[in-house]
Amino acid sequence: MAEEFSNSIVAAGVVGLHAMFAARAITPVEATETYLSRIARLNPGLRAVTDVDEAGARAGARASAARWANGQPLSPIDGVPVLVKANIAVAGRPWTAGIGAYRDRIAAADAEVVVRLRHAGAVILGSVNMHEGALGATTDNPWFGRTANPHRPGYTPGGSSGGSGAAVAAGLCAAALGTDTMGSVRIPSAYCGVFGHKPRYGAVSDVGTTALSWTLDHIGPHARSAADCAATLAAITDDPVGTPTEGVLGVLAFDGQVEVEPHVAAALVETVDRARTLGLKVETVRLSDYDFGRMRRLGLLISEAEGYVVHQPMLSEHPEGFSNGFRALLEWGGNQPAHKLASACREITRAGAAIRAACAPYAAVLMPTAPQTAFPFGAAPANQADFTALANFTGLPATAFPVGMTADGLPLSCQVVAGSEAAALGMAERLATPLGATAGYRG
Amino acid sequence: MAEEFSNSIVAAGVVGLHAMFAARAITPVEATETYLSRIARLNPGLRAVTDVDEAGARAGARASAARWANGQPLSPIDGVPVLVKANIAVAGRPWTAGIGAYRDRIAAADAEVVVRLRHAGAVILGSVNMHEGALGATTDNPWFGRTANPHRPGYTPGGSSGGSGAAVAAGLCAAALGTDTMGSVRIPSAYCGVFGHKPRYGAVSDVGTTALSWTLDHIGPHARSAADCAATLAAITDDPVGTPTEGVLGVLAFDGQVEVEPHVAAALVETVDRARTLGLKVETVRLSDYDFGRMRRLGLLISEAEGYVVHQPMLSEHPEGFSNGFRALLEWGGNQPAHKLASACREITRAGAAIRAACAPYAAVLMPTAPQTAFPFGAAPANQADFTALANFTGLPATAFPVGMTADGLPLSCQVVAGSEAAALGMAERLATPLGATAGYRG
Repeated sequence: MAEEFSNSIVAAGVVGLHAMFAARAITPVEATETYLSRIARLNPGLRAVTDVDEAGARAGARASAARWANGQPLSPIDGVPVLVKANIAVAGRPWTAGIGAYRDRIAAADAEVVVRLRHAGAVILGSVNMHEGALGATTDNPWFGRTANPHRPGYTPGGSSGGSGAAVAAGLCAAALGTDTMGSVRIPSAYCGVFGHKPRYGAVSDVGTTALSWTLDHIGPHARSAADCAATLAAITDDPVGTPTEGVLGVLAFDGQVEVEPHVAAALVETVDRARTLGLKVETVRLSDYDFGRMRRLGLLISEAEGYVVHQPMLSEHPEGFSNGFRALLEWGGNQPAHKLASACREITRAGAAIRAACAPYAAVLMPTAPQTAFPFGAAPANQADFTALANFTGLPATAFPVGMTADGLPLSCQVVAGSEAAALGMAERLATPLGATAGYRG
Repeated sequence: MAEEFSNSIVAAGVVGLHAMFAARAITPVEATETYLSRIARLNPGLRAVTDVDEAGARAGARASAARWANGQPLSPIDGVPVLVKANIAVAGRPWTAGIGAYRDRIAAADAEVVVRLRHAGAVILGSVNMHEGALGATTDNPWFGRTANPHRPGYTPGGSSGGSGAAVAAGLCAAALGTDTMGSVRIPSAYCGVFGHKPRYGAVSDVGTTALSWTLDHIGPHARSAADCAATLAAITDDPVGTPTEGVLGVLAFDGQVEVEPHVAAALVETVDRARTLGLKVETVRLSDYDFGRMRRLGLLISEAEGYVVHQPMLSEHPEGFSNGFRALLEWGGNQPAHKLASACREITRAGAAIRAACAPYAAVLMPTAPQTAFPFGAAPANQADFTALANFTGLPATAFPVGMTADGLPLSCQVVAGSEAAALGMAERLATPLGATAGYRG
């Protein structure tokens, strides 16, 4: 992916920056200034970044530069500029979760993932926009604006981590963190043509992150390569990232249950062909009795009921700080009878176990990320999360990766679900294809 | 414990029977006939056993005897006669879960735990009474009768596995299986003066068991020694039982939060003294911010809401087959707003993690099993499960064990919670004291 940026610092991504710092080709201060100036130049059109911590970023960059000058970097991401989703606390900065009611909330402390990033030496540039409260996939935010898809103005970047996906695609940072409840890291990664990784459930601490659903939330990285995702992930988890797995590639059969756009279906077929060309054995994986739409709706009920609990104090104090639509979803879910929630939790737990068992024999299981490519603001197909949500139900690692562009220039994406972080990321790296020269926002 | 029975087969318990079979002192047929005749003689007064499968038991005993004659027993419990709680399916037999509406339900297949027991060669004698639907702790069952406490007529054996506790105490079987959602194996074990073990959450399959709450249910053994519990447990789990842990014994501080009867408090103090006499180092464990009563009520809400889902089809088809009280609890829990259930699940998950962390430094953590000894039918203190439920919230193994008798002849009990099955069972074995000559139902 990285080659498309004419700016060598942006083109370097995460792993490449480390090499440039090590070779003393540039310093973290230069890298940070490059990204800050790109944000200043490109963000007014994109509205991806909602808070820039220039002073904090520059201080972080100087400290990193000093470590590099002493030959003592803290980690493979020391000096790497990153952005984090607005529901992740950055000490002393606005911590909005994309909700008007939290507009004036200033984080008292860093989220644990931010603490981890800083301990690894990363430079926190600021926060990015998101779908209101992380409950939705268009990032058409009534309080903080519409984030544009870098590949086409007027089109959604996806969501809920739309700012993260757009910022990475436009080269406003080397990597970004997002949160993924039913696909919120992977869907914007797909629509924006970057890599997005949802780690194993529980692999990353959610302390200091305004969850939507503690049952389904996963914090994960967006970046312009699988290796960049892996390096960022390694900084925020104690889990070993591991090594890729050999074995058969499963391809998920969905038997017409999910209405997939023709160019997405064609991209999946091409990806399977590429896997075969690479020498991989490919087999169809069929989930017996899995109803994609029904399970997505059960996941939504859990998200809404748990989101109601998360926001309950603010909902009663400042109901006007929630859009009518978002508030209605939370209140609907929160006030369903308890037996419906209990039943949903049971079905999802059982489905998750069944999918894990079905995936277990394979090196990874391939499927589309979303059934569609990015679409204009105003629309929002109900089935966006049909494929992504199933990975949240399993708790397994899943990586979305670019597989080219449509004829009219929108990114195509597939995802793999696998038994380990490295298995998912490694397969994504093997199967991904560059976006090509149509990609926008070269700086 | 075992010595109190003048019948050498009953006195032998599980482990002793194995030795007797191995020494060819008796055969599994004789052991089974002994228990069947005790059931015939003693059960009319106790009402612990609700279904005796004489033909099945005798067939099982003959097959076991043949294996022993060939010197090829299947396991350490081959030929051992056991009873199972009425919510555990035994193929071709009534599977009532203690609920009138299921009076005519005949199990199409064995529960997985019964399959395991049979594969280990155990002889299934039949099923025992329980509190209606496992939601309560007195076994004053409106459909299948009141099970008596073997130590005092007119007193509850506890519940919900009251039939299991009473049958083991009265020597109607060598061991029994119960289910434990918030204490339902350990409370009747305490009131009846036997050992009761709740394994690690997930260690034992619940397929073919009519759950009350899939979030909190644990299937576990009752027996007359820790070693007998361990042998029975080993047959129904793939988990290694492991070896006991060395280290400090923690003693749970509850700071007056739970109203404990004076003789129970005194028994705890004596047990701590005994631990010191045995050379154990003892330290107080304090759970910060744990509200025993509140957490018990949250556990009940989860049990009621999930129980509603379990019984929903039968509740709508045959509401008259549920007592008014039981139905009201299920309907209340099932129809609370979803956010209350979501919140309860989150609090219990968090409390469980906090308790696990607090217990982690200790070989085991000691506390009373129930705050009281057995009481007359008609009463039912609200706080019976205050101590037991916390182990369900953690998912950790916990063993209740006898620590003597009150002056007027009721069993006293303590429990230990520990990081492994063997750590809990081993500490229970070290700290238990025989009931003494006052124990009833010697056969």
